[in-house]
Amino acid sequence: VNIAEIFQPINADLKKVEEYLKNTADAEMPLVAELLNYAIQSGGKRLRPALTLICGQAGTYNLDTLVPMAAATEILHGATLVHDDIIDHSELRRGKQAIHRKWGESTALLLGDFMFAKSGALAASTGNLRVVTVFTQTLMTISSGELGQIGIDYDLSEVLDRYFRWIDAKTASLFTMATECGAVLSGCTEEVITILKEYGHNLGMAFQVVDDILDFTSDESTLGKPVGSDLSEGTVRLPTIMYVLAHPGDRLIRSIVKDKKRDRSTIREVVKVIKGSGVIEDCYKTAADYCIRACRDLNKIDNATMRKTLHNLADYVTNRNT
Amino acid sequence: VNIAEIFQPINADLKKVEEYLKNTADAEMPLVAELLNYAIQSGGKRLRPALTLICGQAGTYNLDTLVPMAAATEILHGATLVHDDIIDHSELRRGKQAIHRKWGESTALLLGDFMFAKSGALAASTGNLRVVTVFTQTLMTISSGELGQIGIDYDLSEVLDRYFRWIDAKTASLFTMATECGAVLSGCTEEVITILKEYGHNLGMAFQVVDDILDFTSDESTLGKPVGSDLSEGTVRLPTIMYVLAHPGDRLIRSIVKDKKRDRSTIREVVKVIKGSGVIEDCYKTAADYCIRACRDLNKIDNATMRKTLHNLADYVTNRNT
Repeated sequence: VNIAEIFQPINADLKKVEEYLKNTADAEMPLVAELLNYAIQSGGKRLRPALTLICGQAGTYNLDTLVPMAAATEILHGATLVHDDIIDHSELRRGKQAIHRKWGESTALLLGDFMFAKSGALAASTGNLRVVTVFTQTLMTISSGELGQIGIDYDLSEVLDRYFRWIDAKTASLFTMATECGAVLSGCTEEVITILKEYGHNLGMAFQVVDDILDFTSDESTLGKPVGSDLSEGTVRLPTIMYVLAHPGDRLIRSIVKDKKRDRSTIREVVKVIKGSGVIEDCYKTAADYCIRACRDLNKIDNATMRKTLHNLADYVTNRNT
Repeated sequence: VNIAEIFQPINADLKKVEEYLKNTADAEMPLVAELLNYAIQSGGKRLRPALTLICGQAGTYNLDTLVPMAAATEILHGATLVHDDIIDHSELRRGKQAIHRKWGESTALLLGDFMFAKSGALAASTGNLRVVTVFTQTLMTISSGELGQIGIDYDLSEVLDRYFRWIDAKTASLFTMATECGAVLSGCTEEVITILKEYGHNLGMAFQVVDDILDFTSDESTLGKPVGSDLSEGTVRLPTIMYVLAHPGDRLIRSIVKDKKRDRSTIREVVKVIKGSGVIEDCYKTAADYCIRACRDLNKIDNATMRKTLHNLADYVTNRNT
């Protein structure tokens, strides 16, 4: 399924978000405008702003607040990527040079700060305090979640729990913010808000699990960075965790995780071993389970077009290969 | 004059802010709590939260919103210091190891992000959207101001203008936020809010000018970092600018600024030369002028105790030696 087809009911409005993002960047002084445009025009799928628009259809659909909020969601997402790339020493982001590689770490650090502020300002421009509060809580969740990852010794008994808590903070929290704020801004009932929050949370979990699968099963030109990047940065994602849990004595994985032997040929071999084992299917099963949970209560929502879009999106997230 | 004496009318409430800061930090998970406490309990003067409390006395003084806002101001200030220290490669902050030196750059970067979010959440907890908007605008001003500093060639004809714009973004904007938000939260008229904003702006400008003087005239134990630190980081502050403008052909300064010769003995010599010239007095004159502007319209405010506190604070800021 094509994502543009799924987004069909909101495609025209998603273009308005795109224009809004461009105008927001262009309004800044030249260097900031250049950096912002580079960070924002990255060929991303705009999933998060799309979620805000789609969930806005559950109530009184008002683009005056939904468009700035959708833009805030995307800029917040972009800010976390700019800072993540510094921390992970990533060379590339979606096939382009990472900002800290192109302009230096200080510039990337300050740009991320500016983007946090700009996205907060856009959230505040909706005039809705609940949305602002959700926004600040989400940024706290994301940054404290990453802080919680630092200096952790991987203990097999808790590694799976820790992984799910981590991707919840890092990815699902932003998806939850996107759906919740769409619902809040369109004046939905608390019941509908909760259903859409749950949808966002579970979709975000599935999305990250599939992201972590694709790091093994995709190829460099599709990923925009080398296969196995997560492993070479020393972070252990679901496929690796499931493989280690099934083969606790395995030396090859140990050499990467514990002994920090992370040359390209070792990484390539580990990727091959993990792809060849049954864990990729298990991981897809985990993602599919999250998507089932995401859609569980959608039937309680009246708007049939919107329900269909959310179901299609859940299918897309589990079956995507990019 | 002792700062505790000046703060006498708000000292009890400033202690409440102190407790609030401590409780806010302690409520986080252990690593975040440790980092937050380290960043916040730095022996600072709490000037910014004090300004919020003092300006809150211009209207209906309500600690339920003023205390969280004062705490937000201090945490935002702390966040910018944590990120600044990464960018400037500073070893020390108020005599203690800088966070990125003690815990690493990734941790410091994420802690700064968390502190931005936490301070935003506290600002939002006041329930006042104007305050949230001022908050996000201030963070945008601070980060874009620093971005504007990057890669600049020092042109003598504009270096002074550029300096004042820079310290406005970097320092005065936060002072302005502190006074404005105190006034807004206590329901002052727009006229009073403007007077107190102007006070905050001009006091902040004076404060930074004096900070930049002290980097030359103070000593290491008082500063908590070596004398001439700004020069050794390659940033050019008011005393250096005024000296260069008076002696445009001077080779010694040129060797530091243009040729990046920044060993300790060169720095020490430059500090001695600048201290021995008349520019320090000129800089104090600049700071005093800002303080006069800060206090210009205070007579239009009814509360005499508050007026006195603000006048005393302006005197303190120009005459302080720490």
